Amino acid sequence: MIYLDHTATTKPYPEVIETLADAMKEDYYNPASMYQAGLKMARARKDLFNQLGEDLGCSGENLIQTSGATESTNMAFKGLYSKYGKRLNELVVLRSDHHATLETAKFLESQGAKVHYLEPDRQGHLPPERLLRVINDKTLLVSLLYVNNESGTILNLPDLVSLIRQNAPQAFIHGDLVQAWGKLPINLEAMNLDLASFSGHKIHGPKSIGLLYRKDKCYPDPLIHGGGQQNNWRSGTEDYPLLKVLTIASKLHVGSMEESRAMVENYAEILHDTVYKLGGHVNFPEAMPEIQSISFPGMRGQTLMNMLEKAGALVSTSSACQARNAGVSHVLLAMGVDRKDAEGTLRISLDRTNTLEEIKTFCKILEDQVTLLRKWGM
Amino acid sequence: MIYLDHTATTKPYPEVIETLADAMKEDYYNPASMYQAGLKMARARKDLFNQLGEDLGCSGENLIQTSGATESTNMAFKGLYSKYGKRLNELVVLRSDHHATLETAKFLESQGAKVHYLEPDRQGHLPPERLLRVINDKTLLVSLLYVNNESGTILNLPDLVSLIRQNAPQAFIHGDLVQAWGKLPINLEAMNLDLASFSGHKIHGPKSIGLLYRKDKCYPDPLIHGGGQQNNWRSGTEDYPLLKVLTIASKLHVGSMEESRAMVENYAEILHDTVYKLGGHVNFPEAMPEIQSISFPGMRGQTLMNMLEKAGALVSTSSACQARNAGVSHVLLAMGVDRKDAEGTLRISLDRTNTLEEIKTFCKILEDQVTLLRKWGM
Repeated sequence: MIYLDHTATTKPYPEVIETLADAMKEDYYNPASMYQAGLKMARARKDLFNQLGEDLGCSGENLIQTSGATESTNMAFKGLYSKYGKRLNELVVLRSDHHATLETAKFLESQGAKVHYLEPDRQGHLPPERLLRVINDKTLLVSLLYVNNESGTILNLPDLVSLIRQNAPQAFIHGDLVQAWGKLPINLEAMNLDLASFSGHKIHGPKSIGLLYRKDKCYPDPLIHGGGQQNNWRSGTEDYPLLKVLTIASKLHVGSMEESRAMVENYAEILHDTVYKLGGHVNFPEAMPEIQSISFPGMRGQTLMNMLEKAGALVSTSSACQARNAGVSHVLLAMGVDRKDAEGTLRISLDRTNTLEEIKTFCKILEDQVTLLRKWGM
Repeated sequence: MIYLDHTATTKPYPEVIETLADAMKEDYYNPASMYQAGLKMARARKDLFNQLGEDLGCSGENLIQTSGATESTNMAFKGLYSKYGKRLNELVVLRSDHHATLETAKFLESQGAKVHYLEPDRQGHLPPERLLRVINDKTLLVSLLYVNNESGTILNLPDLVSLIRQNAPQAFIHGDLVQAWGKLPINLEAMNLDLASFSGHKIHGPKSIGLLYRKDKCYPDPLIHGGGQQNNWRSGTEDYPLLKVLTIASKLHVGSMEESRAMVENYAEILHDTVYKLGGHVNFPEAMPEIQSISFPGMRGQTLMNMLEKAGALVSTSSACQARNAGVSHVLLAMGVDRKDAEGTLRISLDRTNTLEEIKTFCKILEDQVTLLRKWGM
């Protein structure tokens, strides 16, 4: 099976799986324990955070281990709101943001927050004037999705961040950097974000682990209270083995970023050629090469996806977490794609772990199946 | 090294580690994906929940996968409070509860809740009249820790639950069943709890996974909003491999419960004999055999713990999550143990995975070290 749904989740690197098994055997102690075996683990965790910090351009002390990016985003939003919500109660998000952002914002709306849902433009970008119109001295938080997980659009973070700093200096800025980790250079300190969310399983790491970056002097309430682990930022027994292999995944993924760039760009070009030849559309030509949104007029994405699976390739129609529900991508609708075209869309994620052979085989499969569907008049 | 700190965390069963590695290789797909590989995973998850439900006496549909018991407890408390807090704003906890309970209650206090902190008696039990005094028609939640993680005290749940049902029929009841899982028979439906928290790594399963049981018609708000996974109860990409091995750990642990009972009781008796012979105290003679709180008059627990580690055995002074902070157990203080005796206390956790040989060797080590410390006058 050719796997081209890396945006939904990735297969863990073999080193991740092996090291996890070893660490669960050897290093299962509770890092909060006071004996040497525990203290050693606590020191080792500090070192792991520092290694992650090297990959992300921050101090290890600014990273919190969470159960995933969704928890990270929830903590950023809810932690700021319960801390500062009485004074600052306005949130700004984009309609094309991930559900972790949108649903958390919606929940806070039910708790009294005012949420501004901004429309992106047709390419998924945020026109600065739309942002300017809603930020003010009541703005608590602006959330920015660096790389959109369906369109592959890269937001112009530096400009948007400085716009916010100038016009709403009290506002916090949260970056959803899930799809950017290991695909774009990340330097959190230079990016001047207050909070940022990361996921392990999108970089060939394990599931059930993510990170929340928290700038010095940014103090959201914890989302999970308890034993005071992680300097009180996130309670619950610390999972050393999972953090260890997240660090390995990050090193491998960030370390291979540059050399994989040309490779994946080549894959994207090969795919584009096939799509154009078949009369299809590449919906976001300027997107990250890793995330390709394509459509074939008059053809249902779901049908084509099923045909491709039978022929040996896995792709998706939209983000996995909403696939099961509506079927139609809220992201594409937000970007002004009409419902019919959105229904016809496939998301194909290309990855450095794919081989050229796989991409060529996939293009052949795609050609066969599109041709077949056309013959059937579907 | 003889490991006798199973209450802090346990070493995963070998089957857990092996199966996890296999599942991460084979079954890494996102269970929310619409293709067959994803749908298969979603069906398999349903089956796993049903298997867990068999072990816990409930339907699989009433179980939610969380990142651990601390998250489960946070969701129970905060989810009920944000949902019903305007009408019902009183919470009832015990001072000897786990920090996950106490700190979450404290946070809700800062958000406007009224929290009643009840004192347990000298054996860690809750005298019914103390409970009766504080429950009323404003009570939102009573939380009950079935097996105390430091004293090993088993609360009289059936009586306390029916007392609450009679006197505050609108109140929800949360059970912290972390230390009970696989040690005592659990039948959630018969126990008549509304919510209950469980942890994977206390039953030789992996860290970063726990369960929240939620009775039908009990609707706390989610703690983590997002893509709507797990029927909207807990968003975030579902970790199939971790759930699979939690199920294995549960089967092994619950399955060996009865035969291990006599074994661990024997271990406890051997330990008691040694402690009494050395002039020490068994602080809670009626406790679960797995959790032994012992002390030697005039001797510091921390010192003895360090000596034991050097001699080859790991025990703790109190719960791991608070060990790093105060050093003195809030649980023992709550139960009326005086500060000096509390400082002198060791928690020794005995487990079915320990061998008789290990227990005998440990008793020898304990004797040597206590004798040595006495000789030094410490």
